[in-house]
Amino acid sequence: MKLTDISNDINEWFSGSGPLADVVISSRIRLARNLAQHKFLSRCSTTEKSQILKKLKTTLMSLDLGEKVFYLSVDKADALNKRFLVERHLISRHHAFGEGPRGVVIAEQQSFTAMINEEDHLRMLVLKGGLQLTICGKQINRIDDMIERNVDYAFSTRYGYLTACPTNLGTGIRVSVMLHLPALKLTGQIEKFFNAAKDMNLAVRGLFGEGTEAAGDFYQLSNQATLGVSEADIIRQFEKTTIPEVVEYENAARNQLLANQSDILDDKISRAMALLKNARLISSHEALFLLSHLRLGINMRNHMGASTPAIKNLCGPSNLDNPRGPSIKTINRLFMVTLPAHLQLNYGKALEPADRDLLRAKIIRSALNAEDKTNQ
Amino acid sequence: MKLTDISNDINEWFSGSGPLADVVISSRIRLARNLAQHKFLSRCSTTEKSQILKKLKTTLMSLDLGEKVFYLSVDKADALNKRFLVERHLISRHHAFGEGPRGVVIAEQQSFTAMINEEDHLRMLVLKGGLQLTICGKQINRIDDMIERNVDYAFSTRYGYLTACPTNLGTGIRVSVMLHLPALKLTGQIEKFFNAAKDMNLAVRGLFGEGTEAAGDFYQLSNQATLGVSEADIIRQFEKTTIPEVVEYENAARNQLLANQSDILDDKISRAMALLKNARLISSHEALFLLSHLRLGINMRNHMGASTPAIKNLCGPSNLDNPRGPSIKTINRLFMVTLPAHLQLNYGKALEPADRDLLRAKIIRSALNAEDKTNQ
Repeated sequence: MKLTDISNDINEWFSGSGPLADVVISSRIRLARNLAQHKFLSRCSTTEKSQILKKLKTTLMSLDLGEKVFYLSVDKADALNKRFLVERHLISRHHAFGEGPRGVVIAEQQSFTAMINEEDHLRMLVLKGGLQLTICGKQINRIDDMIERNVDYAFSTRYGYLTACPTNLGTGIRVSVMLHLPALKLTGQIEKFFNAAKDMNLAVRGLFGEGTEAAGDFYQLSNQATLGVSEADIIRQFEKTTIPEVVEYENAARNQLLANQSDILDDKISRAMALLKNARLISSHEALFLLSHLRLGINMRNHMGASTPAIKNLCGPSNLDNPRGPSIKTINRLFMVTLPAHLQLNYGKALEPADRDLLRAKIIRSALNAEDKTNQ
Repeated sequence: MKLTDISNDINEWFSGSGPLADVVISSRIRLARNLAQHKFLSRCSTTEKSQILKKLKTTLMSLDLGEKVFYLSVDKADALNKRFLVERHLISRHHAFGEGPRGVVIAEQQSFTAMINEEDHLRMLVLKGGLQLTICGKQINRIDDMIERNVDYAFSTRYGYLTACPTNLGTGIRVSVMLHLPALKLTGQIEKFFNAAKDMNLAVRGLFGEGTEAAGDFYQLSNQATLGVSEADIIRQFEKTTIPEVVEYENAARNQLLANQSDILDDKISRAMALLKNARLISSHEALFLLSHLRLGINMRNHMGASTPAIKNLCGPSNLDNPRGPSIKTINRLFMVTLPAHLQLNYGKALEPADRDLLRAKIIRSALNAEDKTNQ
């Protein structure tokens, strides 16, 4: 399997399906593990890192995960492939651009990946569309158990799993959900969300994890401490309480927009559609924001029955009586394929930023205008 | 005549016709005069101001200007009417919101106005579309002579006409042209224009004269000193050298955009058209910038034969073979009627900013979509 086999499609990270997918883009659980017989990576020689890599790669590739898996040697991959894997949330930025022998095992459907020699010897991720943390948890535990039958993990009866950074000590778990909160942003309530997250000791990051700056109104919410809490408690708290509360809050803001600020809502949706269908140059950053507003409009129409002029008009003025417009699937696909590395990988080579903006605009224009024709 | 008789139309200030009208929106000459028998206004009592007002009003209203003239008592006018007159460049902001007895005489076609008791006893303006400074000069001199047959101007054989501020001393003339320089802006060369103007001791102001901030890429260029230079020299220098050079510079930038940066040009024009036709809320400031880009595209198509995809597409995708799109006249009219006071005067009452943005977007949408239908 090559990366170009998957670069033109969407994976679980942005599938747009699953429970509460209007607001919860995807759920993700990460486990951090280290091998008992080896030092932490910061104190390993290159030789020892290679031994760890070989051992874990062999173990992982021999597991029966119910689907094909493939291995990529990250230290030997070219920059574009690495950026693609980061954009798709299959590996971390740290893993992509770090040093020393390291690799990643990726399941074909991309709901499971395992980074070898990232910050810990092994960091596994399970990813599902919508709010599916319990299922993610079950799946990652099953895989974790399978691996543990083949290797000895560094484990202390007092602290739990030992990790390179003390914040991961204990369960080594990190639970994250990617949220789409455009209405909280438009109604000026997003700061309240940040403050609430802070009070609950949760971290808020942007789409690509850098700082907390949000791109396209997407926010990653994740737990910070793992010591002294059980995996099951963390997952249950997120899935049963924290996330449903955020979803309710965002939905209240959507209703508020519809009831009191429909001009603002309509303006954002109309502008987004007009620019996406007509602009000749679109930066990655702008595309995320415009697609975000379109996604909001489509979800409000499909699931809240909203029918403001702009929402009715989503598929163009010629089709007012039978509005369908672009599907959420099209929008989600555009989110992914217009990211810089996706764009270049699908194009076949690296492009200058100005040429990327030109190509991005062209891809979006064709996709949205093609949908218009299909619906007429 | 009422102001609402003229508020839905365009005047010479924005007629879009006349020599070099692609770049030179309009030419304007102002003369400052004071009556010999009265003190400068800063030292006048209210009673004396009323006497000056009465004398000048009577003189001006009795002149044969070849068209109807009407008088407005500025100190008694309501705020909306005053803001309308300022927006239309018929009176200055200082005159609108100053103090004491004052008025304005306006010729029906609005190419002549005379402010009484502004900073000087009398400030006359003649306004023509395009580059027509010589004609403006002849017309204002003819009117000035007619007035001088009826009143005694304050005049010194050493200094010339005496004015309240020494910068106007001598000829009391101020020559201004309103320029549209979007290509210099888009190609990053507008600073060079500012520096050149500074070197020539010319003032650059924005559309409404406040500071030098440009709205919609419109710039007013005017002379600063009047002492020791003849009126004819100032006018000749502007009309024969300075302005043709700026026009050439702007046109070179337009050709440069077409030759080397047509993606950027197309992007701006496509975005402007898409937003103007689709946005639900548009601020006055944004409208000026978007209309500016549309104006650039239409002028480049009409007078330079430009036919980039966006320029071809100006009137919508259904009419690619026979592109006409909105006329310059429509665009110029939209520039004026979407200004805040124009908008409210035509609507019939004052509106909150958010309601103005809604109404402005509606007016623009209807105008541009109506043009589409006409052309199909």
